[in-house]
Formats: sequence, C-alpha cells, structure tokens
Amino acid sequence: MNNLFSIGELLKEKDNIEILTHHYPDGDTLGSAYALCLMLQSLGKKARVITSGAVARKYDFLKNGVEVQEFQRDYVVSVDVAAPSLLGENQAEYENIIDLCIDHHGTNSIVAKDSYIDAKAAATGEIIYELSKEMGIGLTRDMASCIYTGISTDTGCFRYSNTTPCTLLIAAELMAVTPNWHEINTEMFEVKTKEKLQLERMVYDTLEYSCEGKCALIYTTLKMQEEAGIGDDEMEGLASIPRQIEGVLLGITMREKADGTFKISVRSNKDVSASDFCARFGGGGHKAAAGCTIEGDLETVKKLLLDAACEML
Amino acid sequence: MNNLFSIGELLKEKDNIEILTHHYPDGDTLGSAYALCLMLQSLGKKARVITSGAVARKYDFLKNGVEVQEFQRDYVVSVDVAAPSLLGENQAEYENIIDLCIDHHGTNSIVAKDSYIDAKAAATGEIIYELSKEMGIGLTRDMASCIYTGISTDTGCFRYSNTTPCTLLIAAELMAVTPNWHEINTEMFEVKTKEKLQLERMVYDTLEYSCEGKCALIYTTLKMQEEAGIGDDEMEGLASIPRQIEGVLLGITMREKADGTFKISVRSNKDVSASDFCARFGGGGHKAAAGCTIEGDLETVKKLLLDAACEML
Repeated sequence: MNNLFSIGELLKEKDNIEILTHHYPDGDTLGSAYALCLMLQSLGKKARVITSGAVARKYDFLKNGVEVQEFQRDYVVSVDVAAPSLLGENQAEYENIIDLCIDHHGTNSIVAKDSYIDAKAAATGEIIYELSKEMGIGLTRDMASCIYTGISTDTGCFRYSNTTPCTLLIAAELMAVTPNWHEINTEMFEVKTKEKLQLERMVYDTLEYSCEGKCALIYTTLKMQEEAGIGDDEMEGLASIPRQIEGVLLGITMREKADGTFKISVRSNKDVSASDFCARFGGGGHKAAAGCTIEGDLETVKKLLLDAACEML
Repeated sequence: MNNLFSIGELLKEKDNIEILTHHYPDGDTLGSAYALCLMLQSLGKKARVITSGAVARKYDFLKNGVEVQEFQRDYVVSVDVAAPSLLGENQAEYENIIDLCIDHHGTNSIVAKDSYIDAKAAATGEIIYELSKEMGIGLTRDMASCIYTGISTDTGCFRYSNTTPCTLLIAAELMAVTPNWHEINTEMFEVKTKEKLQLERMVYDTLEYSCEGKCALIYTTLKMQEEAGIGDDEMEGLASIPRQIEGVLLGITMREKADGTFKISVRSNKDVSASDFCARFGGGGHKAAAGCTIEGDLETVKKLLLDAACEML
C-alpha cells in the first residue's frame, strides 16, 4: 500500500497495537515508534513499543507521555526495521505476524500484510511526521521531540547526504513545537561519558593505515571495553572515526563480540562502496555504510580485512 | 540603519568596494564576505575580500567564481567583525574608515557610517541571504555555497541553540541551489588531517578533571603543535572537546602561543557562564563560549584557571 492516507485510515480502524523497533535501537527507530505510540494513544487506542537489545539511557526521554497499558495485541507494526533478522530477540515471535511495515530502507525485506516504504525519506521519522498530517493528528511536544530525534539522529543533524530540503522544512516545524530540540541535539551529538572518552583514547591507539593511507582501521576488544567500563549500548559512533581522516576512502571498525566473532562496520568516501566490500564477507548495507560479521582472532581478521581493502582500492 | 532594503539600495549606489573579514577567518565571515563580493560583482561593480591571518585551506572553494579585480577602494564593508581588534593586521588601516558594518553579534562595537546588526540571525550568512532578496539578486550556485557554509559552520550544522526555524527554511532553499552542500558539510565537519588527528590524540592525554568532574581542562603547547606538524590555521575545534564530557559544566582549553601567553577558550553547559569566567581574566564573549589571554608558564596558568573554576562552580 503506497498511500500514506490509506495507512492512516487503516490504523484508525485498529486497536491493541504493538510497535516493533529494530535490534539495539537507535534514535530513528525509537523516536518513530514512540511518536506513533503517542499518536495512537491520543486517538484513545491501546498501544505499546517493543524493543530488542539494550537501549542506551540517553533515549529514555522518548518515553515521555507514553502511557503503560495492559492489553492483548491485535495488530503489529514494525518501524525502521529493514529485515526480519534485525528484529533480534523478537524475530521468532514476530516475523510472521507483522501487519504493517513502515520504513525508509529501500532494501526492506520484512513480510507484512501492508507496507509503506519510502526510500526518499531521510528517516522513518519523516514518514511518521507525514502520517500524523494524513491522520489529522496535531503534534504534541512529546510527539515532536520523538520525531525530531529520529530525523536529527538519522541525518547526523542534517549533515548527511540523505537530508533533503523537505527534511529541513519538517524540522523547522518540529522546532516550533518542541522547545527542547537543542537539549536533544546536545544529548545525541555532544555528550560523552567519561568512560566513552576513555575508550576513544584507547581506540585511537589502535589506528592503523594501509593501502597508502586510503584505508584506515580501528578496533575494540572485550578487554578494552571492560577496562573502559563500557556496555554494549554505548558502543555506537566509533565507526565514523576512521572515515573522517583526510585521504581515507575506506574506514573499517572491528568490534570483538563475546561469541568469538568480530562485528565489522565499514564506512566509505567518494566512489568506494562499503556494501560491495562487506558483501565479500557475507554482509551488506548502504553504499557509504555497511557491515558484516567475521569469525576469528584479532590479527587474522584484521589481515583479512586489510588485504581485501588493498585489493579493492 | 536598521532596514535591510535601505542597505541594499545604499550598496547599489557604491562601487570599488572592499569587504573585510575578521582575523583568523571562519566559515561565516568568509562565506558572507565572498557571497557579498559575488553579489556586488554580479551587479557589474568592482569588489574584493580582504582577510587577516591564516585562512584554512578547506575554505579555498569559497573563492569560486570571484573575479580578481584591480581598483582603488571607494567603500569599505565589514562582515561578521564584532570589534575593531578582530580586524587583526588590518585594524590600523581600516578601523576608522569602515562605511558599512554587517554583523550578527549583539555586542558589535565597530564604528561605521552605517550598520546593520541582527543579533537574532544565527549567522551573518543569514543576513547576507536576506540582503540578496532585498536587492533582487538571484542566488547563483557559488553564492549559495558561500552562504550555506556561513550558516552551517556557525550553527554546528543546525545543531546549536542559535539555530531558528528560519535558519532551516533558508538552508532548505540554499540546498536546492547548491547541490554540493553535502560535500561542504563533509569538508567542514568531518574531514580531519592525519596531523590533526595526531594532535587530538596528544590533547586527550592532557585531559584533567577538577571540581569533582564539573570542570575539564585540556591544553596544547607549541611543542605538541610542532610534533604533530600542525599550523595555527588548523587549531580550531579543540575547544569543544572538554565540554562534551558528561557532567562537565566548564570546559577549558589552553593553547600556548609564541609570545609567551596562553589563549584560553572556555565553553560552558547549563547555567554556568563562560563569559563571567573569562571576565575574571580580562576576557569576554557569549554565555556558553568565551575567551581570554593569560601570560605565564603552563603549570601556573593551569592552576590559576582550575582554582578560579572551583571557586565559581
């Protein structure tokens, strides 16, 4: 179903709604889910958000105004979940019972009774904003905070190439409704815990260049995480470090996991495709941001990645 | 003169115009100056930009489309220059002959025949944008790139509290005219030279907390700058590091200068006033960002600052 008005009409008919986020949820999946939950509750419906994996503390405020309600679910909506595997611990229970899928990933592979995918939207938050208009719901401050958070986090605060003039027009309207937009930005983009800063210092010491400076690699180990005193929910943001360096086309971040694998995040500049690179290891993603998982010890996996990088560049 | 239309009419009568930026120019003073220069040249006038101090290489593109013209100056405009001393090496020659001052600093102390100060504008670039409308000049891609750069750099890419809905509406229009807005953001906010990264690693090692973590201090010395191989024009951005840390209310950055002084940059959070803090040392600025200069050796100056911080917090 490719008409947001019809999606709105459909939702108006439903009740007892569960809204699913993706695993290790970020600002967009959470902001979109809580905004939608608030919208549905404002219509007198029962609704709740179901997350998967650790949720970073800084997102707690997104729950403001959401009522905790008891009910048996009748309808399931997923927001910003690009593939069934990204449901994480909820995959088994939910992947075959999703009624409505709302997302901005063009590659979305969720099977649902109804879907609304808009790959031109910079964030799923943009779609939720448009949906509020189609449903005739006036945005409250809490709804606007959620949607602003979704859009600003997914666009790097309007910096990334997915931003459109439309993104800015929506954000301008949201700013007028949510006077705390600046606190949100500070919390999302500036504040670092002392532990996170300590980890970053350690990560800088792992920095290694190869392919004449066109590839840069950093890594974290479980030991480093433990020494810095950092949980899995605070590990985001590191992947942007190697790509920032002048002349680097492929920035690779390796993160040791407890199951003996490394989670690899790849960011690329210019014409280099991060998703092509990750496809070599069974992964995928967007052109400029992709990921994969590789089993092995630090040195072996590092060599594998650096060899592949130099072959590609 | 507080009417931008009249300012536009005034400029239309003038020719052979020099446009002054502030010392060690940033994206807003340069973007505003080159945009205005392009606007005046598009009307068939002669105009040039006069800078002071080193200009970072990343700003070179702002000169795109600007014609180098020979002429004797008849009219002088300053843009984004808040005080005569900020003219740097141009102060003696120009401070008494400024015809028109355009700025967004409420504290502006430039003496000029005509002035247009709009403290509500997030950047001087916003004023230049409005001026183009008042003058009936259609923005070219080069003009839009300059203005976008001014606005995005002065607002931290629409993240800081000076951003308004109006800022976003202007940026939305500029994005449509300057398709390279994303490259601009990458260049302004992401790209770091290897040398800069090296300096940051060294700076992290100087990090010191005091007043139960409410104050954080970092410093750079001439020796560190030399070891990292970094010029004065690449030193910006460090001052935001200490304030980012969770719980820090006062973030202090000390930078050793060749004349035996330290340039102190202070950033504050919440109710703490950076300008009150700097006033104790004869400096000043905005509430959340201020500066001063202190003579002395590293340890003495550091102790002075940390003592004052704990007294204030």
